[in-house]
Amino acid sequence: MEERFIKQIAFIIEVDKIKHIFRKTRLFDDSRHENDAEHSWHLCMMAMILQEYSNEKIDLLKVLKMVIIHDIVEIDAGDYIVYTDKQDEKKEKELAGAKRIFGLLPEDQSKEMFNLWQEFEAKETKEAKFAAALDRLEPLMQNYHTKAASWKENDIKGDRVLGVNKQIKNGSTYLWEFAKDMIEECINLGLIEKA
Amino acid sequence: MEERFIKQIAFIIEVDKIKHIFRKTRLFDDSRHENDAEHSWHLCMMAMILQEYSNEKIDLLKVLKMVIIHDIVEIDAGDYIVYTDKQDEKKEKELAGAKRIFGLLPEDQSKEMFNLWQEFEAKETKEAKFAAALDRLEPLMQNYHTKAASWKENDIKGDRVLGVNKQIKNGSTYLWEFAKDMIEECINLGLIEKA
Repeated sequence: MEERFIKQIAFIIEVDKIKHIFRKTRLFDDSRHENDAEHSWHLCMMAMILQEYSNEKIDLLKVLKMVIIHDIVEIDAGDYIVYTDKQDEKKEKELAGAKRIFGLLPEDQSKEMFNLWQEFEAKETKEAKFAAALDRLEPLMQNYHTKAASWKENDIKGDRVLGVNKQIKNGSTYLWEFAKDMIEECINLGLIEKA
Repeated sequence: MEERFIKQIAFIIEVDKIKHIFRKTRLFDDSRHENDAEHSWHLCMMAMILQEYSNEKIDLLKVLKMVIIHDIVEIDAGDYIVYTDKQDEKKEKELAGAKRIFGLLPEDQSKEMFNLWQEFEAKETKEAKFAAALDRLEPLMQNYHTKAASWKENDIKGDRVLGVNKQIKNGSTYLWEFAKDMIEECINLGLIEKA
């Protein structure tokens, strides 16, 4: 086998570990926590089906690439809840993870994946904004359908949920209206405290 | 909410069930069986990294769409091992599943997804051939790395593995050479019987 192919196969085997990284959110039927591979697949499906709600016309291929790779860094860094106060520690560990794991690939692909991941993290391009909106929307929907299971488990208040997730509107004002309604219903039903 | 959006959200929630459909193959570390969401995500990653080995230049976006949706039908039909003798039963159940599940979507998206799934199943276009090659390659790699765990569990002989998987070469002669070497090594090491 050629060196290039050996590197590609090593990467493909390494990323299998993402199936062991469990998130704070639970599946829609509340049976267990979701892992990063399942989550990333669900974002792919959401990108395909919901692309028309992006504020700006997006390159779907680029969004798919981003959501496919966006959590690879968690193989090394682990999963931090989006409401974490440890943002600096999270960023440092994830950057180290990106360098190690994407570094397994041949140089051209390593650069492409690293750049895609940085673009996703920066949330500045229209594709990154839409991908980030989906990344926020899926756990919101899961919480809504599990009587706020993850928010209750982690003692997250309604105002914090609204504050952290309002970035969804940068990618899609339409999806943010939908998300806001779900959060407010959870507060109104007394599933989570407002503040 | 508009009717179109309600249908899209209902579909996105329904497909969460794919996370409960477990395959016959095991994760690379042999810790447990893999589910269809994890498998579909892994094929996305393989399509991105290995596209250069397709026999023909492919439209990556189309391949990704195919691998994202290819196992949705198993929510209703369940997972059949690729070596099953029940091909007619499998086809009938999967077709019914495709009609029901893609039928949850608005008509334009329902048609697009159904057509993509049928194109994948027919294995005639270059994108379908490459997607099908990846769909065969991932479980082969998993078997190779778990001392043929799934082949042994299901009493599959080496000649049958070679016969069923040689279709990989229709998508990629390069990947078939790699796959064939793995299968032959499993036979030569005595992990599975040849016939």
